[in-house]
Amino acid sequence: VLTEEIRDQLSRASVAAITLQLQRRGIRSTFFEGLRPLAEGQRMIGVAHTLRYVPIREDLLPALGRANAQRTAIESLAPGEVLVIEARNELGGGTLGDVYARRAMMLGAVGIVTDGCLRDTPAVKDVGLPVYNRGSHSGTFSRVHMPLDHQVPIACAGVTVMPGDIIVGDGEGAVVIPAALVAELAHDALQQELEDEWSVQRVAAGESTEGVFPISKERRPEFETWLAERTKATAGDQ
Amino acid sequence: VLTEEIRDQLSRASVAAITLQLQRRGIRSTFFEGLRPLAEGQRMIGVAHTLRYVPIREDLLPALGRANAQRTAIESLAPGEVLVIEARNELGGGTLGDVYARRAMMLGAVGIVTDGCLRDTPAVKDVGLPVYNRGSHSGTFSRVHMPLDHQVPIACAGVTVMPGDIIVGDGEGAVVIPAALVAELAHDALQQELEDEWSVQRVAAGESTEGVFPISKERRPEFETWLAERTKATAGDQ
Amino acid sequence: VLTEEIRDQLSRASVAAITLQLQRRGIRSTFFEGLRPLAEGQRMIGVAHTLRYVPIREDLLPALGRANAQRTAIESLAPGEVLVIEARNELGGGTLGDVYARRAMMLGAVGIVTDGCLRDTPAVKDVGLPVYNRGSHSGTFSRVHMPLDHQVPIACAGVTVMPGDIIVGDGEGAVVIPAALVAELAHDALQQELEDEWSVQRVAAGESTEGVFPISKERRPEFETWLAERTKATAGDQ
Amino acid sequence: VLTEEIRDQLSRASVAAITLQLQRRGIRSTFFEGLRPLAEGQRMIGVAHTLRYVPIREDLLPALGRANAQRTAIESLAPGEVLVIEARNELGGGTLGDVYARRAMMLGAVGIVTDGCLRDTPAVKDVGLPVYNRGSHSGTFSRVHMPLDHQVPIACAGVTVMPGDIIVGDGEGAVVIPAALVAELAHDALQQELEDEWSVQRVAAGESTEGVFPISKERRPEFETWLAERTKATAGDQ
Amino acid sequence: VLTEEIRDQLSRASVAAITLQLQRRGIRSTFFEGLRPLAEGQRMIGVAHTLRYVPIREDLLPALGRANAQRTAIESLAPGEVLVIEARNELGGGTLGDVYARRAMMLGAVGIVTDGCLRDTPAVKDVGLPVYNRGSHSGTFSRVHMPLDHQVPIACAGVTVMPGDIIVGDGEGAVVIPAALVAELAHDALQQELEDEWSVQRVAAGESTEGVFPISKERRPEFETWLAERTKATAGDQ
Amino acid sequence: VLTEEIRDQLSRASVAAITLQLQRRGIRSTFFEGLRPLAEGQRMIGVAHTLRYVPIREDLLPALGRANAQRTAIESLAPGEVLVIEARNELGGGTLGDVYARRAMMLGAVGIVTDGCLRDTPAVKDVGLPVYNRGSHSGTFSRVHMPLDHQVPIACAGVTVMPGDIIVGDGEGAVVIPAALVAELAHDALQQELEDEWSVQRVAAGESTEGVFPISKERRPEFETWLAERTKATAGDQ
Repeated sequence: VLTEEIRDQLSRASVAAITLQLQRRGIRSTFFEGLRPLAEGQRMIGVAHTLRYVPIREDLLPALGRANAQRTAIESLAPGEVLVIEARNELGGGTLGDVYARRAMMLGAVGIVTDGCLRDTPAVKDVGLPVYNRGSHSGTFSRVHMPLDHQVPIACAGVTVMPGDIIVGDGEGAVVIPAALVAELAHDALQQELEDEWSVQRVAAGESTEGVFPISKERRPEFETWLAERTKATAGDQ
Repeated sequence: VLTEEIRDQLSRASVAAITLQLQRRGIRSTFFEGLRPLAEGQRMIGVAHTLRYVPIREDLLPALGRANAQRTAIESLAPGEVLVIEARNELGGGTLGDVYARRAMMLGAVGIVTDGCLRDTPAVKDVGLPVYNRGSHSGTFSRVHMPLDHQVPIACAGVTVMPGDIIVGDGEGAVVIPAALVAELAHDALQQELEDEWSVQRVAAGESTEGVFPISKERRPEFETWLAERTKATAGDQ
Repeated sequence: VLTEEIRDQLSRASVAAITLQLQRRGIRSTFFEGLRPLAEGQRMIGVAHTLRYVPIREDLLPALGRANAQRTAIESLAPGEVLVIEARNELGGGTLGDVYARRAMMLGAVGIVTDGCLRDTPAVKDVGLPVYNRGSHSGTFSRVHMPLDHQVPIACAGVTVMPGDIIVGDGEGAVVIPAALVAELAHDALQQELEDEWSVQRVAAGESTEGVFPISKERRPEFETWLAERTKATAGDQ
Repeated sequence: VLTEEIRDQLSRASVAAITLQLQRRGIRSTFFEGLRPLAEGQRMIGVAHTLRYVPIREDLLPALGRANAQRTAIESLAPGEVLVIEARNELGGGTLGDVYARRAMMLGAVGIVTDGCLRDTPAVKDVGLPVYNRGSHSGTFSRVHMPLDHQVPIACAGVTVMPGDIIVGDGEGAVVIPAALVAELAHDALQQELEDEWSVQRVAAGESTEGVFPISKERRPEFETWLAERTKATAGDQ
Repeated sequence: VLTEEIRDQLSRASVAAITLQLQRRGIRSTFFEGLRPLAEGQRMIGVAHTLRYVPIREDLLPALGRANAQRTAIESLAPGEVLVIEARNELGGGTLGDVYARRAMMLGAVGIVTDGCLRDTPAVKDVGLPVYNRGSHSGTFSRVHMPLDHQVPIACAGVTVMPGDIIVGDGEGAVVIPAALVAELAHDALQQELEDEWSVQRVAAGESTEGVFPISKERRPEFETWLAERTKATAGDQ
Repeated sequence: VLTEEIRDQLSRASVAAITLQLQRRGIRSTFFEGLRPLAEGQRMIGVAHTLRYVPIREDLLPALGRANAQRTAIESLAPGEVLVIEARNELGGGTLGDVYARRAMMLGAVGIVTDGCLRDTPAVKDVGLPVYNRGSHSGTFSRVHMPLDHQVPIACAGVTVMPGDIIVGDGEGAVVIPAALVAELAHDALQQELEDEWSVQRVAAGESTEGVFPISKERRPEFETWLAERTKATAGDQ
């Protein structure tokens, strides 16, 4: 679903513009609350590959250990995927360390989102994959977690994520886009971004926000002219 | 798996004694943290029937609404089951109201555990089914939740619950027992309860806890004698 | 705005039914989250009289102390009013004690809602006024609070309350109803309550919830008949 | 330090009146925040015997286990003492169960305060000793705690407690009184209670709180007369 | 009230020195708890212009939307002002984005303090205005908030702020200074800063902190001499 | 106990590798939860010197002020020590400022761990000592704390610390190592680190994690060969 055009549009829109467009469609809980980008300025666009952790139940470990949902999730990552981990916002143990992060990158994964903790954070940072996480804990997941299953619906940082959803991240955080909506969403988010760009320019030129943000009916022709010229100019650049 | 003998043993053991026996086997997270009995003195023994809620995603409602995991879970309850709901410890919306609670009881369910909120709590209380919950909220689940699936593994109040696990509750709270362990667990928990009963009697008679709690090797014969007599006496009662 | 008919309807509807009707109108945040009834089974219907506390700023005490918003709020309570206090969900100090609670009752106030703590809770309980609060703290408000103003818009337990809003409480908690909507809301909430009553009766008679809760188009005539008979019977009672 | 007169005064003053007198002396943190009485209407006056728990460190268990601060604390309780436990407001494990609670009572202890959880709460309730606690957890302390030492200064529910401090509890919660201040504090708190009683009577008679609460200079003679008569009447009762 | 001299003094004192001087005057709650500087090393001095958000009440939107307190607050900002937003420490939605941040800067505002979330944080960072905030959320304020009023007293991050109060920020966080106290406060905070500078120099020279921090009566003449020389030297620099 | 060899091993192992080795020995709570390094990339190895804060009790200040546990702790720091402060995870006041931080460094201390707040954070950062803290607050400790004692067992960020324990920190956080275990722990943690290094190299070369992480019996000889060569090469470097 992530065509070149959609990727281009998403890469030029902020997570804020995307979230606003989702809110406009009545989809309210899409921003991963409380997660932070590991590296400043990082950006990420990919397809969700989910992994679910539940509280450890030592009697279930033999059966679940054989299955090993964590390894299975990592090893089955496809190029362009983002690993999204449900860890119940738990701060008492890690959910992923540097070896698996590096393996994810080798397999073409483009990012990691976890509502729990990273483990061995400095080494994960060195891997260079964009990561959004709640915190860090140097204990292994078995301190509190047990990987249960992958590619199932999950709840991560207050957001429901389905396998195949689109995940976009920037310097603010990350957001989920339902796969079925990504084409129109990418288009409208970019349009939103451009409107904001015009609003900022008007404000920077000394204008009040009245009529300028949001753009009023009266000012819209002015914006359209600006947008047409801008598009032409950008096209000329290429 | 809940034979008459096991039920009898579990009904005479406290949740505290059961939890201790699980800890002794290295199973640490079995008590539903922060949930309270709805009615004072209530007791509950049953088989887990799980229901999973995730954060609402309005775009998924049409598909999930048709499936309606909440109704399916309730209507498929079998006699002797306890409905256990994963609701992410969320306090911002209800997870179950009085109509479904009554239907659950009509179908022979013996209790409800939810790590979220009850809705219409006074009416649910009138139903009379034992309930363990985190709080109350008069909003419907759609304020924050979306029922996703039932009879799948869940995380409830810090505890992983598998369909078919045994759930026991008393005036303190509720605990999960792995189905495979319930026979030995019930036996050992009752034994633990009886040891505590003896310890309490000794302490009430003015003894120090030294050697009495836990029971030392030296005092164990004394306990065994007491236990034998007590068992005989109880048998005579029947 | 609280006519006899509206009062009657509200007194027969649960807070859950009222909240559901508000949700149906797209008004999502009306239930005071995390507040509990002080006495079991209490009920309350009244008009909001608001009081706002802010964090103590010792330099402002001389000016604000002369004004004394707490006393002014209490002494200006009119019959039928509910005192609603914004205290930032703070657990570190009381917001109201027994003398003011008694004065409120003497002036005809019908209840108190505070998202902070009661002080001298046993004595307040003796006053007999319905109270919804977050907790108890025996310190006076000056430990953390400063009364700022009364009869201004406030935020209480996650709900915005305007002076003159209608506040209804039952054994579950309390809810705010916008004054402009109270007539239609009371009617529809009571209708909701009656539908639920029918659903419960059908379920108690052994029916599935399918078609019965919520009431399907097919079953609605049946409900209407039941309702007509019930209304006649009730009228006969009077 | 707890003479008969001081006990009498403390038993007639509320925890709220005591806390107010401590605040007046600039001692701000004396009320155990967030702890609740186990039984409705319970009251407690005693001398603090402290017990400190720290997070479990399995390597330290052999040494600390031999010392066993929990048992030592319980077995060394003297008549009139209140066991006060520091447990870091932790909700993940019990701090005391019914056997030790009963032993405490047998030794003449008059109450228990813990900022952690009770274990086997129903059985502890049967013991009948006044308890103030944060919650309940059926796991043993070893799930998260390790008893370290007793009769040392502790921090409990936001309050520093020294061995020998006076602890008073009522239906609202519990408060610590520095031993050195207990005589004057008991006197002034009772005086405060009597002033409040007069204020309540005036308000119940229909007066405004102005001048009545707190008692103004103008109304004080009236209060003094009432107090003198009340004291005489009470004396006559005896 | 912010004369050139006061600005100079405040710019040379740390927020820590200012807060200490406020504590010394018995004003305890002045530091915005839990808010962080958006950019490392930022500093800010200005006059508070307040804005109050309350929980969204959809029925009130038409009336409040027309008033639009957010736009009114921004558009009425005067040079030298700091916009201070009350958002109930809420992490579930933004309170301000980049267009309004830029408009604020264009109008001469010198900073923003919000106890809620920024929206489109990277773009706000580009604006370059000093910001102190609790977190980031890419959703718009309407997800949870409703702007109610501006230039009214507010509670922000545990601190009461009056319009016209002085707000100072550095790399640690931000603090409020009552306008009436700013002259003496600025003087004393700078003096405090200089004392600390001397203490640090003494410690860096190998001395114990005894007598040096805080400065004892015996060492004060030494400090005074150092201060006189330092002042002379600094004057020579200019 | 910190020989040159042990220091060398610890300096080459990550906090994650150390924590894992502690978990393997059944010691679960050793990582200071929720504390962050003040400066990016900082590292720290030292011996714990503990300091305990309790909630302020104004009546105890005269006695405790004379003792002044804070100054005593700082002034008695020995070269190679890490000051570890118990501050109950409290965010409402500082626990240490720049003058004491500098004095600590002058005395040869190698780091600071506090589960409370730094005060005057920018100035402390300038001192250059590695610090792990929960947050920042510009108020002095007397806003909420009272230094009680030093070189006693403490609970810090969920971890029990004994005077003399070994504290190691890196860019992720800090961990405690029981002094008695430090020799074997340092050896095994470095071994763990080297195994991870090999795993990362294999993964970076395109291998699956299967057999490579953790290292299987089949692959172990390969790792041993690599390790021998690596050790030789490193030795050649020196």
